[in-house]
Amino acid sequence: MSKQARVTVADLHEATASALRAVGVSERHSATVADVLVTTDSWGVFTHGTKLLAPYLKRVLAGGLRTDAEPRVVAEGPAWAVIDGESVLGHVTACFAMQTAIGKARVTGIGYAGVRHSCHFGAAGYYAWLAAKENMIGQAMANDIPSMGAPGSKTAVLGTNPFAFAAPAGEHDPIVLDMALSTVAGGKVYAAHQRGEPVPPDWIIGPDGRPTTDGSLYPHQCSLSPMAGYKGYGLGVMNEILTGVLPGAGITWGVGSWLFDDPAKPTHHGAACLAIDVGSMMPIEAFHKRVDALIREIHAAPTASGVPLMMPGEREWRHRKAALEHGIELPVDVTTSLVSAFDLAGTRIPAWLR
Amino acid sequence: MSKQARVTVADLHEATASALRAVGVSERHSATVADVLVTTDSWGVFTHGTKLLAPYLKRVLAGGLRTDAEPRVVAEGPAWAVIDGESVLGHVTACFAMQTAIGKARVTGIGYAGVRHSCHFGAAGYYAWLAAKENMIGQAMANDIPSMGAPGSKTAVLGTNPFAFAAPAGEHDPIVLDMALSTVAGGKVYAAHQRGEPVPPDWIIGPDGRPTTDGSLYPHQCSLSPMAGYKGYGLGVMNEILTGVLPGAGITWGVGSWLFDDPAKPTHHGAACLAIDVGSMMPIEAFHKRVDALIREIHAAPTASGVPLMMPGEREWRHRKAALEHGIELPVDVTTSLVSAFDLAGTRIPAWLR
Repeated sequence: MSKQARVTVADLHEATASALRAVGVSERHSATVADVLVTTDSWGVFTHGTKLLAPYLKRVLAGGLRTDAEPRVVAEGPAWAVIDGESVLGHVTACFAMQTAIGKARVTGIGYAGVRHSCHFGAAGYYAWLAAKENMIGQAMANDIPSMGAPGSKTAVLGTNPFAFAAPAGEHDPIVLDMALSTVAGGKVYAAHQRGEPVPPDWIIGPDGRPTTDGSLYPHQCSLSPMAGYKGYGLGVMNEILTGVLPGAGITWGVGSWLFDDPAKPTHHGAACLAIDVGSMMPIEAFHKRVDALIREIHAAPTASGVPLMMPGEREWRHRKAALEHGIELPVDVTTSLVSAFDLAGTRIPAWLR
Repeated sequence: MSKQARVTVADLHEATASALRAVGVSERHSATVADVLVTTDSWGVFTHGTKLLAPYLKRVLAGGLRTDAEPRVVAEGPAWAVIDGESVLGHVTACFAMQTAIGKARVTGIGYAGVRHSCHFGAAGYYAWLAAKENMIGQAMANDIPSMGAPGSKTAVLGTNPFAFAAPAGEHDPIVLDMALSTVAGGKVYAAHQRGEPVPPDWIIGPDGRPTTDGSLYPHQCSLSPMAGYKGYGLGVMNEILTGVLPGAGITWGVGSWLFDDPAKPTHHGAACLAIDVGSMMPIEAFHKRVDALIREIHAAPTASGVPLMMPGEREWRHRKAALEHGIELPVDVTTSLVSAFDLAGTRIPAWLR
């Protein structure tokens, strides 16, 4: 029954927001979450877009994600804030956090917003990009239930703790780096195993604490390898401190699985956003010119393929341009998940999905 | 003639500072640089400690590093500053930058200090640790002349752009992560080639833009691979923006080689320090307890070897404890370099080095 579907950004947004409204999420929050998810799909990052709508709806319906609350600042100073997400959808809280950080940065030059009582927030790059849209440098990060080991560990010790960075450019698209700190996402291990292929030895760590190529061990008997070994593990510790320890959020096993744990209960994810106001420190045109020069220089570097190097985020902006012009071609796993989402919400299956 | 030598931290500091004073560096700056280099040796990070004294002295003697100037704030706001290092020793400027960031953070909660006209500053972890000593979270980073490629590039496009993070703990030593963004340092490639071994395929990228195991290509016909491929390259871009673009420092090839370029000329390195004042956001005792709990949990994770996982920096703190108690055992490459440093400075070879 399920198949690929082409849909306009506007139609996908409306269907996504409708489903959220149908389960009781406010109009404003529904629009925010839909914008995050549909922008992510428009970037071609289908693992983190509307494919995840169904599990979010499940948690809303079960009460683990609240619809009767708003994220709020519980403590603040001139250049920082700690935000209680009140277990609303993590996307709403992360947008609020980045806007708070941006507001602080406008006054002092830089702003940090730490978040507690958040949940899975989708693609970290979206929030970093919110800063770049305001001509600021942005960072966004989160923690998660442990699924990533350290070199030599027999078990997971940290989440894959995503990290994103964005910076505005002048004649070019903003730079947007968005990455998990594991070598690869768990989904890649699963897909390789489904295809009957062994996985490269730097993807997962087996139950004996040693690298393995046996993808069948994922996810219950192995952990994901941190990228670059000790370095990725070290960055994971950094993220855990900035997103979990400092804002007073859950830490490591104190964070619930937003996919597999009781959907009636909050997950206690932490998150953090940082914004640096470029214009406070240098005329924005001068900064744009310097970033453009860096981009031109990297584009001009000779490559093995003859195809120019891409800046972080460049592939995604190209995908988005095509999506805005011709619509988004949703893969089968996304359309399948969307059908179940609209089923959960009790909203009509849109014509483009039939 | 050269051999290993055991020396007390105090004696190594005095000899290092004396040599700096002898070439005209002020007493205060000499003490600062000696503290950075000797602390680094005491951590066992011999690649970035007093081994580098000789090339620093060479640049001081040739005039590329100035002795008649002080780093100064050229622009600032409530939570940020841009610092002109005036081409004094990079260690002096980086200490000044982190102290400036700490001062801002004490008032607003967070402080960023960007640096222009710096030079090689040794181990980034030292400056991040300065923040942790003040019960703050610290980050320190720098750019450098390109030596690192991007996946598929035939040439280097970015420096290995070091990044460091530190956070204070309660009953444990501070967490200190200090890493270059290449898979390995160039020195490791060189050493493997000297031993006649091929290098792993993720260490260097050959002149055709493809991974190679031929260490003889280093350094002139290859670039260092970024750690974790596109992710390390992306973090390199981030560092370049925070340390080069934003503070108005040199960018990529606008940065000189502090080792190989004309020692009479400044190198135009950039750097950046960030400090977050924990106590502004949470009682420091509560933060210490949360970090200690994270450390205990990671220490308790089962491992392949049965030896507990180490936190970032833990190996270095153990080394330092032994160094403070029994002295530092300097390897031959360090003692050899120190002999040439004291020769350059015209100071006596200390008894412990004879």
